[in-house]
Amino acid sequence: MTLTLITYDWLPEFPRSFVRDMRVRWMLEELGLPYQVETVPVHPKSAAHLEMQPFAQVPVIRDGKLTLFESGAILMYLGEGTLLLPGPRRAEVTQWLFAALNTIEVAVIRWVTMVLAERSPEFFGPAPSAEITAHARRELDTKLAALEQAVAGREWRAGAFSIADIAMVEVLRVPEAEGALEGYPALTAYAERATARPAFSKAMADHMAHWQAADAARAAAGLA
Amino acid sequence: MTLTLITYDWLPEFPRSFVRDMRVRWMLEELGLPYQVETVPVHPKSAAHLEMQPFAQVPVIRDGKLTLFESGAILMYLGEGTLLLPGPRRAEVTQWLFAALNTIEVAVIRWVTMVLAERSPEFFGPAPSAEITAHARRELDTKLAALEQAVAGREWRAGAFSIADIAMVEVLRVPEAEGALEGYPALTAYAERATARPAFSKAMADHMAHWQAADAARAAAGLA
Repeated sequence: MTLTLITYDWLPEFPRSFVRDMRVRWMLEELGLPYQVETVPVHPKSAAHLEMQPFAQVPVIRDGKLTLFESGAILMYLGEGTLLLPGPRRAEVTQWLFAALNTIEVAVIRWVTMVLAERSPEFFGPAPSAEITAHARRELDTKLAALEQAVAGREWRAGAFSIADIAMVEVLRVPEAEGALEGYPALTAYAERATARPAFSKAMADHMAHWQAADAARAAAGLA
Repeated sequence: MTLTLITYDWLPEFPRSFVRDMRVRWMLEELGLPYQVETVPVHPKSAAHLEMQPFAQVPVIRDGKLTLFESGAILMYLGEGTLLLPGPRRAEVTQWLFAALNTIEVAVIRWVTMVLAERSPEFFGPAPSAEITAHARRELDTKLAALEQAVAGREWRAGAFSIADIAMVEVLRVPEAEGALEGYPALTAYAERATARPAFSKAMADHMAHWQAADAARAAAGLA
């Protein structure tokens, strides 16, 4: 049975390349697994969406009778026996997957929501003072400096390419796009190495084509 | 070989009951696994600590030759075959574990760091405006309202008590302590049900006794 990836029917341009379904598309390309895409309305949220994902987020996958959300859980599920490296490296991969999503991403989101609020308060709420944003940036930098040391001299974080690298690089693409990886040559090279993989390129091309098709559909419906 | 839990040698009073090693102590008590405690200095961080945990956080566990950090990864490692429910519920438990740590905790930390900065800027940096804190609270409330529906009518989230409940309730104890679970009767009852378990009580008693012993040691050394 073909796997199904469920994502939004449309999004404004700025978050498109960072939506968390990219993590899943990338993973599916690494595994060479065919999949189909279904959509749920970004606004208003549908009952069918909330039935699958109580927080009305994406991605969700459907695999036969199983419906699964949370990108970290999806990576673990799809990676069983492959990119969740089996054997003694399994615990290390899991550790770095959680480091990506519960240590680094927490600090990235705290900071980037402030940056985005400065830029687009209509979407992200009232903008904090420059002093508060600078404080959040220093907290993020403490984490990134530690990660720089932890990645330096390694091709991949757990001895071979794994779901931990997919998650970590997807998290790092946000500060990278905001210029916040300057001064971290090992992290910059790590992100470049990962995103140079053919599976990333294929996933990103399909991901962006999805949004372009959504624009075209809206235009045809007289919405754009 | 006895498992070792590595935590700080001392902490100021306010964060004590919320340190993430409680998640691990609770889990170890649920499993009835004996363990010993080792400490690392909270300040300044030691080279031995950074060798085990590049972000200088706790908890870390040592199990024979394996050293493992990230509370989510430790719960999965310890829960293999038991509270990471085996069989068809495994994916669901993993999904809710990540929902706790990558959806709910992210929103909790964004908000609570603002509340703490208002209260103790010397520890948590400059205090945001009331408008910004209120915005973060609304974003947290959106997540909590969804979780309220997802927990209502269930004893435990994945059909039986699991590591997802340990992680979720540990995350919920923070807004609960700040009065932010009022208005969420299902979440309040869920947290009460979980923390009424003997394993939680035993873990919390040992956890707080650790900090009390640390106070006594500092007093004896003329530090407090």
